[in-house]
Amino acid sequence: MRIILCGFGVVAQSFSELLESRTHDLYSKFGLRPRIVGVFDSKGCAYDETGLDLKKLNKIKKQSGTVRNYDKSIKQISGKEIIENFDADVLIETTASNYKDAEPGMSHIISAMKKKMHVISVNKGPLALAFPSLMELANYNQVMLRFSGTVGGGTPILDYAKNSLRGEKILSFQGILNGTTNYILTNMAEGMSFEDALNDAKSKGYVEADEALDLDGLDAAAKLVILANWIMGMKVTMPDIIKKGIRKVNTNDIKNAEKNGSAVKLIASCDKELTVSPVEIKINDPLCVNGTLNAISFTSEHSGTQTIIGRGAGGTETASSILRDLIDIRKEITKS
Amino acid sequence: MRIILCGFGVVAQSFSELLESRTHDLYSKFGLRPRIVGVFDSKGCAYDETGLDLKKLNKIKKQSGTVRNYDKSIKQISGKEIIENFDADVLIETTASNYKDAEPGMSHIISAMKKKMHVISVNKGPLALAFPSLMELANYNQVMLRFSGTVGGGTPILDYAKNSLRGEKILSFQGILNGTTNYILTNMAEGMSFEDALNDAKSKGYVEADEALDLDGLDAAAKLVILANWIMGMKVTMPDIIKKGIRKVNTNDIKNAEKNGSAVKLIASCDKELTVSPVEIKINDPLCVNGTLNAISFTSEHSGTQTIIGRGAGGTETASSILRDLIDIRKEITKS
Repeated sequence: MRIILCGFGVVAQSFSELLESRTHDLYSKFGLRPRIVGVFDSKGCAYDETGLDLKKLNKIKKQSGTVRNYDKSIKQISGKEIIENFDADVLIETTASNYKDAEPGMSHIISAMKKKMHVISVNKGPLALAFPSLMELANYNQVMLRFSGTVGGGTPILDYAKNSLRGEKILSFQGILNGTTNYILTNMAEGMSFEDALNDAKSKGYVEADEALDLDGLDAAAKLVILANWIMGMKVTMPDIIKKGIRKVNTNDIKNAEKNGSAVKLIASCDKELTVSPVEIKINDPLCVNGTLNAISFTSEHSGTQTIIGRGAGGTETASSILRDLIDIRKEITKS
Repeated sequence: MRIILCGFGVVAQSFSELLESRTHDLYSKFGLRPRIVGVFDSKGCAYDETGLDLKKLNKIKKQSGTVRNYDKSIKQISGKEIIENFDADVLIETTASNYKDAEPGMSHIISAMKKKMHVISVNKGPLALAFPSLMELANYNQVMLRFSGTVGGGTPILDYAKNSLRGEKILSFQGILNGTTNYILTNMAEGMSFEDALNDAKSKGYVEADEALDLDGLDAAAKLVILANWIMGMKVTMPDIIKKGIRKVNTNDIKNAEKNGSAVKLIASCDKELTVSPVEIKINDPLCVNGTLNAISFTSEHSGTQTIIGRGAGGTETASSILRDLIDIRKEITKS
């Protein structure tokens, strides 16, 4: 299975290392023999139609900061050119999410699907801004568009709701979908001011380069868009979310919540409306998790309310979700 | 799809009502047109090769306490005879669990599989005592043996671990798998004595007719056997579980746990050993749920620890898990 990898940051490197370490078991268990035929980061590219040497690739990136140095004899071309000129079965999009125009991820995904490649995206931008039309494009081109890693990192929230609850009707759901803001709010509940809690989260590397993505609820809203489309069959995009971040949560709000046996959490909710907003959640509600944990509660017609809790991010975790998507795609291809 | 239903207690009645209310949507969504051709309870049976009238069946049972009165003109025969004389695609086994000889469920399941029927069991007894050999018998007869409702009621714990985490290696897990003991321990944490808490649970109808099944950890151990076989690929049965119930947990244990920021929970654990035993769990661990809730935490190689929380029992919930199994079987049959 030939793969083009867009971006080579933490998640993509973890994925590449995962493939390296699991070559044998992926083949014996799933008949999966993945070859990365092209990869690019912000500084350059590497490609080889017979498959790049993953060990070398991972080492070069670590040493020099770019895949450009993998093979200095090849011509440097753009990501777009790689997608257009190389034959591959699957494109994996891992460049950074942005919610203005979702580029360059949006163009990568569209070009790939038009070339009949299946797509795995852990980049939330394109899905948040254009989920319904990207899904249509995938159907039109008869390719699969997968995105397990966009919500819950390695915790298979999307899969759980879609597959494990098949035959059930999900009526509503609410979740803590952004670990960074949850970490900040947890610290505030323990007495820190918003500023101190934010700085602490920054010092631990939890905050996005553009802090607005976390603090203003954009990241949580993007995940809500994906969940609403995929699980509830809605056709919505980012502007449909009513959104309020945590910047205005102060020590008084936290104390009031505590008096009510509750804690303030940034909750993404799909009920009558789609909202992201700080909400008081009872301490003994399974949803009320602390630190960087993510949690989501689905309320279904016959099975009551079920909650899944897990780490919402992390390179290895998200890489393992890409692998799950890849195994799925392989399975579907073999079927037809 | 022709179904024989063994037992017609709370779960089976909920299932029958679920089928009644979802006839149209099951056909349009899943191509599923279930017909119950035979059913029996402890007092008698009802059968009709063209499918029983579910509305009438549910009404008669409610009014008279047995399905025997569905059609007084038919000859009353034993459950065994129904299984042997009727053609059906699926047998659903819902009689009460027992961990001595697992009868009559064990005979129902074995007879059905020998007759090439697929089996859905929510009866834990046969699986706890003979999981490996029942699975072999199913393979030998090329039928499916499903049991989603045995662990977690309507919370699809088995499915989550097996499917949503595909491509992942689960290293260990631990769970609160018995809602009754969790309810008792929760009450004790709030100050009740063991006896008062037990009586309160009894008055709410939470305790099994044979209270040892809950209090001595048999129910939790049976679920652990099922999880260990299905998810970890172990070949174990009830005697392999090291088991200790909650009868000896006293107010001091509860208070000591509280001092450590913990609570005493009856934990079923699969790590180096398979154990069911009262254990101190940190209050802020997602696993530490209260009341009748069930919870299980899976620790996997790449995705960290993930916890699922939900109601572990209930007629409607368990009925919805039978329906999921039925949809699965229908899907698999159509494939081949």
